[in-house]
Amino acid sequence: MPAPLRFRLLDRFLVVAMLAVCACSRGNAARQLLDASPDASPDPLPSWNEGRTKSASVDFVARVTTPGGRDFSPVERRIATFDNDGTLWPEVPIVQVAFVQGKLKAAVAKDPTLAQRQPFKAALAGDLGYLVEAGEPALVELLGVTSANMTDEQFGREARNFFAEARHPKFGVPYTDLAYRPMVELLEYLRAHGFETFISSGGGMDFMRLVSKLMYGIPPENVIGSRLKKEFRVDGERPVLWRTPDIAAINDKETKPVNIDAHIGKRPLMAAGNVRSGGDIAMLEYSQPPGRTSLQLLVNHDDAEREFAYGEKNQASLTAAREHGWHVVSIKRDWRTVFALPKR
Amino acid sequence: MPAPLRFRLLDRFLVVAMLAVCACSRGNAARQLLDASPDASPDPLPSWNEGRTKSASVDFVARVTTPGGRDFSPVERRIATFDNDGTLWPEVPIVQVAFVQGKLKAAVAKDPTLAQRQPFKAALAGDLGYLVEAGEPALVELLGVTSANMTDEQFGREARNFFAEARHPKFGVPYTDLAYRPMVELLEYLRAHGFETFISSGGGMDFMRLVSKLMYGIPPENVIGSRLKKEFRVDGERPVLWRTPDIAAINDKETKPVNIDAHIGKRPLMAAGNVRSGGDIAMLEYSQPPGRTSLQLLVNHDDAEREFAYGEKNQASLTAAREHGWHVVSIKRDWRTVFALPKR
Repeated sequence: MPAPLRFRLLDRFLVVAMLAVCACSRGNAARQLLDASPDASPDPLPSWNEGRTKSASVDFVARVTTPGGRDFSPVERRIATFDNDGTLWPEVPIVQVAFVQGKLKAAVAKDPTLAQRQPFKAALAGDLGYLVEAGEPALVELLGVTSANMTDEQFGREARNFFAEARHPKFGVPYTDLAYRPMVELLEYLRAHGFETFISSGGGMDFMRLVSKLMYGIPPENVIGSRLKKEFRVDGERPVLWRTPDIAAINDKETKPVNIDAHIGKRPLMAAGNVRSGGDIAMLEYSQPPGRTSLQLLVNHDDAEREFAYGEKNQASLTAAREHGWHVVSIKRDWRTVFALPKR
Repeated sequence: MPAPLRFRLLDRFLVVAMLAVCACSRGNAARQLLDASPDASPDPLPSWNEGRTKSASVDFVARVTTPGGRDFSPVERRIATFDNDGTLWPEVPIVQVAFVQGKLKAAVAKDPTLAQRQPFKAALAGDLGYLVEAGEPALVELLGVTSANMTDEQFGREARNFFAEARHPKFGVPYTDLAYRPMVELLEYLRAHGFETFISSGGGMDFMRLVSKLMYGIPPENVIGSRLKKEFRVDGERPVLWRTPDIAAINDKETKPVNIDAHIGKRPLMAAGNVRSGGDIAMLEYSQPPGRTSLQLLVNHDDAEREFAYGEKNQASLTAAREHGWHVVSIKRDWRTVFALPKR
């Protein structure tokens, strides 16, 4: 980023921050409540600018955790589900697509004819249009070469290598350095108030589980995602799970509530997703039955300087947010810090 | 149970218990370790008779939780998976079959022709042979009438009514009073030592989740079972999950390890199942990769007086136990108390 741009951005943040400090009083009751607790720091969400989204989150947590309050929710009902790509880490490129492309390049080095055949050609070129058109059979072919026909343990080794070696094309750091700092703070804040936090994402379940604890403090058993069919086999003396290329579950749109139910058996009290494909609308709706206090956040990528700026073709997510009263998180305005990147 | 039988049984237990106290020294190291902890009671498993199974369990927990020991396992790897029917509560009759029969009788009261048609006729008569032969299409028909074509919330109400009203034909108490006391102690003992406890059963996931916390201290999100396909719908203002009669997953035999992986993403360090159908063999194998200390328990129903006595046609479970060194739990010899029934 050129230096003048960075300064202009900083100016704008300072102005917004000062306005927010003057205008915002809604979060006070909640903050006083937190201040009464000896462990609470004065601001549990320092990477969030003051404003409506932050105060709505703090108010929500105060309301559902204040004993005797009208909106009090016992600990066992404090379930929060977060999408991953574009909600907890960047999706330009989709990290797992970068992994698959790397695996494909290695396969092409062994068999150069692969690069001339579909769907491999499209995948190497990042031609998502072709892949969406070609649908599940193409995906199965791709997964067969890159992520299946091996044991879970082998897949784990290969994905760990990717996370150790690959660098993000824009930021030049490992993908595991790119958790959104404000969302990590929010996850920690929720857990400190008795919430159990889950990921529910279209990403591959096994891929995410390798880094979810390290990046977000979310253990593997709290990660719901897309997955392949596996077979139990005994390989010599060793009982293993074999990854077939067939798809067992795609976790997206209307299947997110269904898979959340299958995994947790409880309706989330809070859900967060992002604007791009409409993939989180059903999950956010599911978390908001009438007559119950709940919280829905929808991240909008509007910060080309610090992250990326992109929208959604049919505007379905933002339309749903307006209709249902969900909180739209503007990365530009709401996040003081986007990443906690090491100084270089 | 006639009184003389009860006394003979008591005599036999006292003899076995005294022999066990004299002969057993294997568990001492583990018990000393526990005694060092101020919270530990002298015997964390009072419903278990002293003997090889009890001392193997205590030894296992001591070995994997002793810091610095060769077999030490960090908390995040302490995963224990338990079958339910016949492992945590009785399976004569299978509780969910009793529920389905009750629902069928109510349906027949409205439409008497149902009782003349298969598979309803067989289900009402408890003719498992016919149902196994007829397979999944018959099951789908049964579930359609008894457990599907309604919202999750309606199903929950109906199953809760069953648990409140139904009584076990032999014991005359609600099914929720019939957790095996020694297994509940074992679950508590494992959790007190950092284990996360899960159910992995062929039973219906939603059915078990209604009582798993109350009966075993296992929350809904830690219950893996068989389940129907569901659809996300918005019913007026209310987002709901609709139960279709199609089957999404049968959790049995080789699919148990696969579903444990999908749900937890970790290999269990301890697993427990029972003798009847061979349904737990794969789960126990999966928990026992070579070169790692683990524990496998297989409950054998050999106590016609206090519970039930039955075996397995092809003896596959007991054969596997011998081959792999799993611990066979004899209800007759190993359990001092079977149920914690209220005095009547």
